Amino acid sequence: MLATVMYRTGDVRVENVPDATIRHPTDALVRVTRACICGSDLWPYKDLAPTEGGRRMGHEAIGVVEAVGKDVRRIKVGDVVVMPFAYSDGTCDFCHEGLQTACVHGGFFGVGEVGGAQAEALGVPQADGTLFPLPVGEDDALMPALLTLSDVMGTGHHAAVVARVGRGRKAAVIGDGAVGLCAVIAAKRLGAEQIIILGRHPDRIELAKRFGATDVVSERGDAAIERVRELTGGHGAHSVLECVGSDQAMLTAVGMARPGGAVGRVGVPHYEAVPRAQPMFYRNILVGGGPAPVRAYLDELLPDVMEGRIEPGRVFDRTVGLDGVPDGYRAMNERESIKVMVRP
Amino acid sequence: MLATVMYRTGDVRVENVPDATIRHPTDALVRVTRACICGSDLWPYKDLAPTEGGRRMGHEAIGVVEAVGKDVRRIKVGDVVVMPFAYSDGTCDFCHEGLQTACVHGGFFGVGEVGGAQAEALGVPQADGTLFPLPVGEDDALMPALLTLSDVMGTGHHAAVVARVGRGRKAAVIGDGAVGLCAVIAAKRLGAEQIIILGRHPDRIELAKRFGATDVVSERGDAAIERVRELTGGHGAHSVLECVGSDQAMLTAVGMARPGGAVGRVGVPHYEAVPRAQPMFYRNILVGGGPAPVRAYLDELLPDVMEGRIEPGRVFDRTVGLDGVPDGYRAMNERESIKVMVRP
Repeated sequence: MLATVMYRTGDVRVENVPDATIRHPTDALVRVTRACICGSDLWPYKDLAPTEGGRRMGHEAIGVVEAVGKDVRRIKVGDVVVMPFAYSDGTCDFCHEGLQTACVHGGFFGVGEVGGAQAEALGVPQADGTLFPLPVGEDDALMPALLTLSDVMGTGHHAAVVARVGRGRKAAVIGDGAVGLCAVIAAKRLGAEQIIILGRHPDRIELAKRFGATDVVSERGDAAIERVRELTGGHGAHSVLECVGSDQAMLTAVGMARPGGAVGRVGVPHYEAVPRAQPMFYRNILVGGGPAPVRAYLDELLPDVMEGRIEPGRVFDRTVGLDGVPDGYRAMNERESIKVMVRP
Repeated sequence: MLATVMYRTGDVRVENVPDATIRHPTDALVRVTRACICGSDLWPYKDLAPTEGGRRMGHEAIGVVEAVGKDVRRIKVGDVVVMPFAYSDGTCDFCHEGLQTACVHGGFFGVGEVGGAQAEALGVPQADGTLFPLPVGEDDALMPALLTLSDVMGTGHHAAVVARVGRGRKAAVIGDGAVGLCAVIAAKRLGAEQIIILGRHPDRIELAKRFGATDVVSERGDAAIERVRELTGGHGAHSVLECVGSDQAMLTAVGMARPGGAVGRVGVPHYEAVPRAQPMFYRNILVGGGPAPVRAYLDELLPDVMEGRIEPGRVFDRTVGLDGVPDGYRAMNERESIKVMVRP
């Protein structure tokens, strides 16, 4: 079968690899009908050291279950399923608490023997805990929106939950990538009265406004902090949704939070320590976040997608086949595309 | 009148200074009946650069109101009041939200023209917002416990609230100073099922146990993290109450938090950045805290003190007059005393 393999910085290939199989009795074999390229895939695209066997890529998918291991009970052959970007057993303490990304039997796709989703098929570990059957056919018009529940929409929602977005709160979203745009949707959905998007790409800003952004800040660094404070009546945002992961983004995030405010970070951190520990302390600012338990959020978000109340599928502005995946990485890396959907 | 002035590292003097007065119509003049020395006073005791006029010391007090400015409405001459360690107007947005330590007209004692509490008397800004009348006479037997509501008990409670202590949660308390010991009381009071104290001084450990600590860890650094994980079934503490403020304490705090857990930090931070940003992210650990809004916690904590359900006054193990203040600093700095009460 065909699968996407990254060998080093900028070197993404679609190659023939051994067919995906059921390796454990709790696995399901899923034929991938939709996958996509994630902003987090661009980090290794920018800095992966050369690797011998390459790294399987892709962790967001919708597909059809082709086979299940003998211990799989809930998931059935033929189910159309969405696959959260982390697998989880659904039974451990963390899964019960709704933090499936800390599952004691969980893990991430493309690591070790577990394949990636930018492929024709994929063996999914812990199928009963991981996969979520969708009430639609495999070519439903809502596929783009449903696919975002695999990662970006749930991740934007996580940023908003951790940053304590709620009625009457002023929110700032750092990052105008697909996660940042979904964070705008999430902030609006949770009742923020003001949503400031930090970004400078006209097409992304346009989409952010459509999703509910009320203000746009195109400055960066201290100038951005100053501008957000002005826009929020002098004190900063109650909720800052950090959707980038750079040290500069975190510096800005902590700086623009109001005293007593919260920063929800979902950008994979490329820094060793959270900056501004002292202002963060003197202003009683809370910093949290991490890999989103998107599996936990499916029950809450799915109805809004099914009934069209939110339209996160709009973050996809390009669709490719598997052969178009390498160029999709290039296009996202050059910010020519917001997010690329893959139809294997 | 006599007041405590610190001139440089280790140089604390009790001197004659101009009498405290009403300087603004919102001030109250308070005759100090009880004050104390705070762990945070030891930071400048260890590293204050020489200063010309010296720094007025002390921010915790109970006293009797001797006079009020013409705009003071709620506080009356003769009231026995507890003074939170920060003053606040009681009317701004932050005060209404219960974050009085971010009050737009607020500030700290011993800064600028505002005096310190280790003195015979003190002018208290924003008296109506700041002071809390107590339902007792000035020599009530509960004075030591009531005095902790000025800072350490409210600060320990803040650590517990931010670290989300609650029924069935496992808590770890870093620091066996007066704040750490009050954090144990707070964790117990909020229903923690396990309370691990990190410390090595037998007298303090004894008190921590009396307050509700269930386990003691005397290791430090990675060994302490390992031990806390063992004691909590392998994953770490839901709630870590960081009551020290050193970089080592924060390293340890983040390291021993369970995935999905929270660190409440109330030790004045002597580090520039919060360490372990990546494990903190991958484990979805939340870090918050800061100067405790002890004014907001008085309503909740006072009844428990009045009815003897909590006994935070036990953290005082020495009482001195004003002339004994310099030796009190020495004793606390050398860990000969946990916390020193001052009776001017």
